[in-house]
Amino acid sequence: MDRPLILVTNDDGITAPGIKALVAVAREIGEVVVVAPDSPQSGKGHAVTLTDPLRLKKRKVFEGIEAYECTGTPVDCVKLAVNVILKDRKVDLCVSGINHGANDSINILYSGTMSAAMEASLEGIDSIGFSYLDHSYNADFSVCQEVAKKCMHFVLEKGIQNAKLINVNIPFVPLEDLKGIKICRQAEGRWKEEFVEGEDPRGGTYYWLTGKFIVQEEMDDTDVWALQNGFASVVPSWHDLTKYDAIDHLKALET
Amino acid sequence: MDRPLILVTNDDGITAPGIKALVAVAREIGEVVVVAPDSPQSGKGHAVTLTDPLRLKKRKVFEGIEAYECTGTPVDCVKLAVNVILKDRKVDLCVSGINHGANDSINILYSGTMSAAMEASLEGIDSIGFSYLDHSYNADFSVCQEVAKKCMHFVLEKGIQNAKLINVNIPFVPLEDLKGIKICRQAEGRWKEEFVEGEDPRGGTYYWLTGKFIVQEEMDDTDVWALQNGFASVVPSWHDLTKYDAIDHLKALET
Repeated sequence: MDRPLILVTNDDGITAPGIKALVAVAREIGEVVVVAPDSPQSGKGHAVTLTDPLRLKKRKVFEGIEAYECTGTPVDCVKLAVNVILKDRKVDLCVSGINHGANDSINILYSGTMSAAMEASLEGIDSIGFSYLDHSYNADFSVCQEVAKKCMHFVLEKGIQNAKLINVNIPFVPLEDLKGIKICRQAEGRWKEEFVEGEDPRGGTYYWLTGKFIVQEEMDDTDVWALQNGFASVVPSWHDLTKYDAIDHLKALET
Repeated sequence: MDRPLILVTNDDGITAPGIKALVAVAREIGEVVVVAPDSPQSGKGHAVTLTDPLRLKKRKVFEGIEAYECTGTPVDCVKLAVNVILKDRKVDLCVSGINHGANDSINILYSGTMSAAMEASLEGIDSIGFSYLDHSYNADFSVCQEVAKKCMHFVLEKGIQNAKLINVNIPFVPLEDLKGIKICRQAEGRWKEEFVEGEDPRGGTYYWLTGKFIVQEEMDDTDVWALQNGFASVVPSWHDLTKYDAIDHLKALET
């Protein structure tokens, strides 16, 4: 392959350290174009902006790299990248992240990082979302960069077969303690919400979402197990939410 | 079962005609509590509000029904309903909709209606999302109400087995022309985006998302086929996005 064209996006915003770390890996591998939100978009899931106009602004954030900030969601960024900015070119790979915080288990549903990668896969582009189990702004992303390099080379050379999307989470360990990369399925888990109730300065009641993530299984083929045991987890993911083995039971509802 | 407790939500907002039509059905079947957005939230996908407080306001929208409007997304509404408003009660069923517009195929990913129902299923509640292939505000929902009644009775009596969520779409046909209900899988389809580019009154360039939905298959076991042929489509859906048959191919990436 010639030098591949790599679209880079994220959900923490174009100035987040995580995307800087990812651009640094991507530019070693191919030609990079960045289209990312102009503000943090964590938890935006697969939201798209329908009732408002979107804006794009060229930004010099990464030395020598074509980069745009966008007023919309992560999914908006990918749609604009593919259909406006790069509409006459073939994107070989989309990478999203590196997210500041985990996106394992069902967090793929809430994650702007993963939804952006999912959107690119819907556009027919092999895509990877990267997330790091360290929330801190000043995280050291070097362990992620090692994993990202391997994953990007693999996908560019061998593809993701019948998936087009992988969800990569990297444990919060020093590089020398990383056990390796493990291919997994998405673990069963749930958020146990704990809304903080408070009174604002004007006397109104508010609720602020917080909570704890509860792992609901301990099987060693899951992403949660891999991360707890020092591996980077890779889950092939896709957009078909059909629960095939419930179809027979529901047939009695047919009329 | 005693009179079941039914949570009703949507993404078009608490004053939309679609939710009124759904409440009318639900109140015949059980005790109803409504928690819905205070403004239209179409296309919000599985977005949650993390960085802002949420508000709840009791509203007299449906005669004799406990109803709350919420400042957040459809998923926020479900989280607040289950964890604040109804935290000491067991919700037997969550119904979301009736959406003004289709949510078949991959539109389940973008849909606030379906994401609200998905969120309830993650909370362990059997859930149904209803969408009508008529976008108009003054749609006649009577055909939807017939389908909704059947689906709600079925799920309350027989459950959804190993799924907990069904995605119900109703074709835009008069009741007498409805062919019946068909259990389906999610069709392959894609949005072909067409951003409208314009200049705002202050000279800035904007992009406004629009597009056409492209069906990518014609198989008669899909939701798109069912709807095109006059059936209401029912797709059992779930939260595990793992693409299991890509795992083997990726094993070569393990280290």
